Amino acid sequence: MYRLALQRSVSLLCKFSKCEAKRLHLTAAQLRSSKPLPEHGVTTVFVELGDTKIELLHPLGEKSPVQSFLDKNKSGGMHHICIEVDNIQKAMEDLKAQNIRLLSEQAKIGAHGKPVVFLHPKDCDGVLVELEEA
Amino acid sequence: MYRLALQRSVSLLCKFSKCEAKRLHLTAAQLRSSKPLPEHGVTTVFVELGDTKIELLHPLGEKSPVQSFLDKNKSGGMHHICIEVDNIQKAMEDLKAQNIRLLSEQAKIGAHGKPVVFLHPKDCDGVLVELEEA
Repeated sequence: MYRLALQRSVSLLCKFSKCEAKRLHLTAAQLRSSKPLPEHGVTTVFVELGDTKIELLHPLGEKSPVQSFLDKNKSGGMHHICIEVDNIQKAMEDLKAQNIRLLSEQAKIGAHGKPVVFLHPKDCDGVLVELEEA
Repeated sequence: MYRLALQRSVSLLCKFSKCEAKRLHLTAAQLRSSKPLPEHGVTTVFVELGDTKIELLHPLGEKSPVQSFLDKNKSGGMHHICIEVDNIQKAMEDLKAQNIRLLSEQAKIGAHGKPVVFLHPKDCDGVLVELEEA
């Protein structure tokens, strides 16, 4: 058994030029500086809204795994949700036992410097789910 | 000026039979009973995860506005995010002034018994955004 909590964030894919424009709309929010994550092929920017946040993603590099999403969704869109677990190894074993596919054999380090793993959207009702060890 | 906060929830569209199966996976989470919202053409079920929650949506009635989403995304998917505002009228005026289209002229009562309005996804980088008066 392991603890689950929906992370207080949602991750959106967008074009940065538009995000820059959005910044003007987000006058009540705080925009953090961008952070490149070469291992994941994305650049991230967090928009802080109270004690919650929105993660803006943009493809990084030529083989970014998120490029195909932007090709299919020209204006961007909702990309994934993140669920925090207190024991990612235990969660991964449990999911494998339930035939829920993981997108990598091992957890990688994510945007918050913690181990993360993604689950196959086809095994999660069409939703790309990220697990992060809290 | 008005306060913004990302609601600690994300809304997913799914087929209920699958959700029932998922219930077995969500052993660490609490599933609330379903609630029909005829005015919005959906039935909702909230899954509580710590102090956050996932809203599961299913079409209700023959003219449900979410049916086309399920037609396009057979396995379901991420449907919308909700941003809380402390003054929905002020937020609506501000958004109209910025040419961000609202999907209804007036706010309606949402799943939490509070006024809500949806913003056009094409004006929000492909993301369907719900505003809820907190």
